[in-house]
Amino acid sequence: MQTLLDELRRIVGTAHVFTDGDLSAWEQDWRKRSHGKALAVVRPASTDEVAQVVKACAVYRQAHPSCGVSIVPQGGNTSLAVGATPDESGHQIVLSLQRMSAVRRLDADNLTVTVEAGCILQNLQERAEEASLLFPLSLAAEGTCTIGGNLGSNAGGTQVLRYGNARDLCLGLEVVTAQGEVWHGLSGLRKDNTGYDLRDLFVGSEGTLGIITAATMKLYPLPAAQLTALAAVPSLADAVALLALAHRRLGAGLTGFEVMGQFSLSLVAKHFPQLPMPLSLASPFFVLLENSDHETEVHARSQFENLLEAALEQGCVSDAVVAESLSQARQLWHIRESIPLAQALEGLNIKHDISVPISRIPDFVRATDALLQQAIPGVRLVNFGHLGDGNLHYNVQAPAGADAAQFLRDHEVRVNTLVFDSVQAFDGSISAEHGVGSLKVDHLAHYKSPVALGMMRAIKQALDPQNLMNPGRVLRV
Amino acid sequence: MQTLLDELRRIVGTAHVFTDGDLSAWEQDWRKRSHGKALAVVRPASTDEVAQVVKACAVYRQAHPSCGVSIVPQGGNTSLAVGATPDESGHQIVLSLQRMSAVRRLDADNLTVTVEAGCILQNLQERAEEASLLFPLSLAAEGTCTIGGNLGSNAGGTQVLRYGNARDLCLGLEVVTAQGEVWHGLSGLRKDNTGYDLRDLFVGSEGTLGIITAATMKLYPLPAAQLTALAAVPSLADAVALLALAHRRLGAGLTGFEVMGQFSLSLVAKHFPQLPMPLSLASPFFVLLENSDHETEVHARSQFENLLEAALEQGCVSDAVVAESLSQARQLWHIRESIPLAQALEGLNIKHDISVPISRIPDFVRATDALLQQAIPGVRLVNFGHLGDGNLHYNVQAPAGADAAQFLRDHEVRVNTLVFDSVQAFDGSISAEHGVGSLKVDHLAHYKSPVALGMMRAIKQALDPQNLMNPGRVLRV
Repeated sequence: MQTLLDELRRIVGTAHVFTDGDLSAWEQDWRKRSHGKALAVVRPASTDEVAQVVKACAVYRQAHPSCGVSIVPQGGNTSLAVGATPDESGHQIVLSLQRMSAVRRLDADNLTVTVEAGCILQNLQERAEEASLLFPLSLAAEGTCTIGGNLGSNAGGTQVLRYGNARDLCLGLEVVTAQGEVWHGLSGLRKDNTGYDLRDLFVGSEGTLGIITAATMKLYPLPAAQLTALAAVPSLADAVALLALAHRRLGAGLTGFEVMGQFSLSLVAKHFPQLPMPLSLASPFFVLLENSDHETEVHARSQFENLLEAALEQGCVSDAVVAESLSQARQLWHIRESIPLAQALEGLNIKHDISVPISRIPDFVRATDALLQQAIPGVRLVNFGHLGDGNLHYNVQAPAGADAAQFLRDHEVRVNTLVFDSVQAFDGSISAEHGVGSLKVDHLAHYKSPVALGMMRAIKQALDPQNLMNPGRVLRV
Repeated sequence: MQTLLDELRRIVGTAHVFTDGDLSAWEQDWRKRSHGKALAVVRPASTDEVAQVVKACAVYRQAHPSCGVSIVPQGGNTSLAVGATPDESGHQIVLSLQRMSAVRRLDADNLTVTVEAGCILQNLQERAEEASLLFPLSLAAEGTCTIGGNLGSNAGGTQVLRYGNARDLCLGLEVVTAQGEVWHGLSGLRKDNTGYDLRDLFVGSEGTLGIITAATMKLYPLPAAQLTALAAVPSLADAVALLALAHRRLGAGLTGFEVMGQFSLSLVAKHFPQLPMPLSLASPFFVLLENSDHETEVHARSQFENLLEAALEQGCVSDAVVAESLSQARQLWHIRESIPLAQALEGLNIKHDISVPISRIPDFVRATDALLQQAIPGVRLVNFGHLGDGNLHYNVQAPAGADAAQFLRDHEVRVNTLVFDSVQAFDGSISAEHGVGSLKVDHLAHYKSPVALGMMRAIKQALDPQNLMNPGRVLRV
């Protein structure tokens, strides 16, 4: 391996190949579920250096077929699916894109920005805003995660309802292939039908087919106003009815539609008693709505109030409040964003990131709740998520007073099976926005159609025959 | 071949295998550029029959490697790139999806519709409208083209600006693979990160990787009002400035932004003198704008008028008219839609379907116009298209009075080279929305990056190793 390490040092400079000391920032995943051992952390500064690194590894592996050297691309290391950290073999190179963080070019008339993979999401949002434009991808880890990782995992977040996933925001890619060649596909075109859609193949492939080094992303006009409301709804079916009404009344102005179960909010109230809770927690479900308006705040407010009045009249909303100021709006979002932390303070729990067709959510939740209660009496469900996209974080917490660690040991496998079986019965997905990584690779092998898995394997074999790129993630070959 | 034909008759029924008589409806392409000879036209009625047909062909070809049997999937046969008709070998099966035209299921709460590949686009639009919903894909051939063809070629059209291409409207697919297996991927999910994006690989692959038999497509709320305006703009740069202003002022309400050069409209005025032309043709360019509104017509009108007033003030518009009625709006669209016919009446011409980044369109047109005038003095440019997507139909007509057929014979190759070279210099695409088919397969081999072509070839080889599916289209293997 020494010759390979020497070669890597030659390519990126000795200062950017780490092999000693505490490498846990790169070796340990975000949720601390896995701590691997890297052969080296390599931090190239340019696309050309990335290509040289990949080529060096490919050549080395060709010459030493049993060496086990492979490459794990890494951005901000915020994967929730253990997709970007090395395994324990000590043979994997972590290829960090952090030094490639430039915004190469913002083209206001084309509504696009070309950005390197290591650019932190929040930096890109801010850069767009400076140009009075919006880069709409928004998610909890935005202060740390990178565009390359967002694209590799096809990240979702809170504005998918209106602007789509990371995939939908991407027009072009620059990619270093598994052979160390550079595909210059940084198109800023909204229409381009010249052959197979390689872009979307790399987006969401979690670094298993090649390395995204830069991307051209869509921008939007900055809304003139953005308002937030919290509504109590009598049931999940009412939440779905409210969504349909909001689509009709607000059109593309509807940019956020988050659902929160009563128990989720009760955990927030319990662990963060200082947070003001503007509505009584008596309702079984709550919806957080966001309305973006290209006219004025006055127009936005009248639109929003009309919607909520119609919803109150129709009965799908029992109570509602529209934030009066930006700080009130932030408080409402803060309640939503505090759920994961409140949940953690309540104790370990079994997390899911699932989706089902929106129309089937009420039945899915009713059926799955019942199955879980039957299997584990007293189990508590922290159910919240992006209802507008059919995406629920349907998390399972130990019965009140039970030992949470013991609960996980006893029930995690069984709960996963029960929830995923139910998801499958409702034509859903076992990984809506977090990806597969190594965490769900075996689940995927079980739940994905064999025909689809066969095609995935054929594509992996075609583009990365050495299995050099992030092996063991997404699928085993 | 007889045993294969017998087998196909057994699968779909004798009445649905055509081998005799006038088959030009299937053998000749839409623009009559090519008339091939089919071994048979086979019209399966179900996904299972499609799978059996493919399997029978695959098995036959395996047993008779030199027989040359292959499959050309066909929908409404409206390809503008000769992508769906057989070659002259007499060895190709035209697999027509026309009998598979059912709308399987419309799910209003999920805003999705699941539809078979042979469903005519207009029928789907109407079915959505009956449910007070919008299926926004809209293009000239909508009365004939099918959803399967729209997806196979990733069709564009006039509302891409707001709703995206066929690709962006698709959530899930059912596909018969080149091995005759069925991939049941009819997901109605807006978030699903379970592995490689096979959906987008089949979308736009023009039947070369497998056969799309059904799809789940997105629906939108029907707008409450839709208004159309025609604006005269002093230059293409002003048209780009108007686009930016319209994005800011109308937000997602901007659903159409078509540009038309003066000469395009003068041809319409010449060949269709009965069509009312609401503005003087003195301006070098005109823009057709469409504003969709989820509130009211009154709101839409005030928004639209405010935009145009601001544009007049800013100087990027010199004159404008907003249609006062639906029939006036139709008249404005009719002007735009009459350009291709007016052009044809003026004589044969060299058509292009190109895109460049919107910000570069003025420079691209200036530079390419000059190169063409230099090469062929007096040449006339019929320049129009979907400026909002960067997509121009930049067509080249013989100098006034010249023999058009002779012009094509003398100049087609040279004009194509000149235009495509210029497109490439401006980071554009030589096929924006029509696809590659067999018409542009050699151009693609020349202009596409070798790295991209290499990956495309590897994927084709991986998924269709027999080269059974629509060979010679998109890329040669």
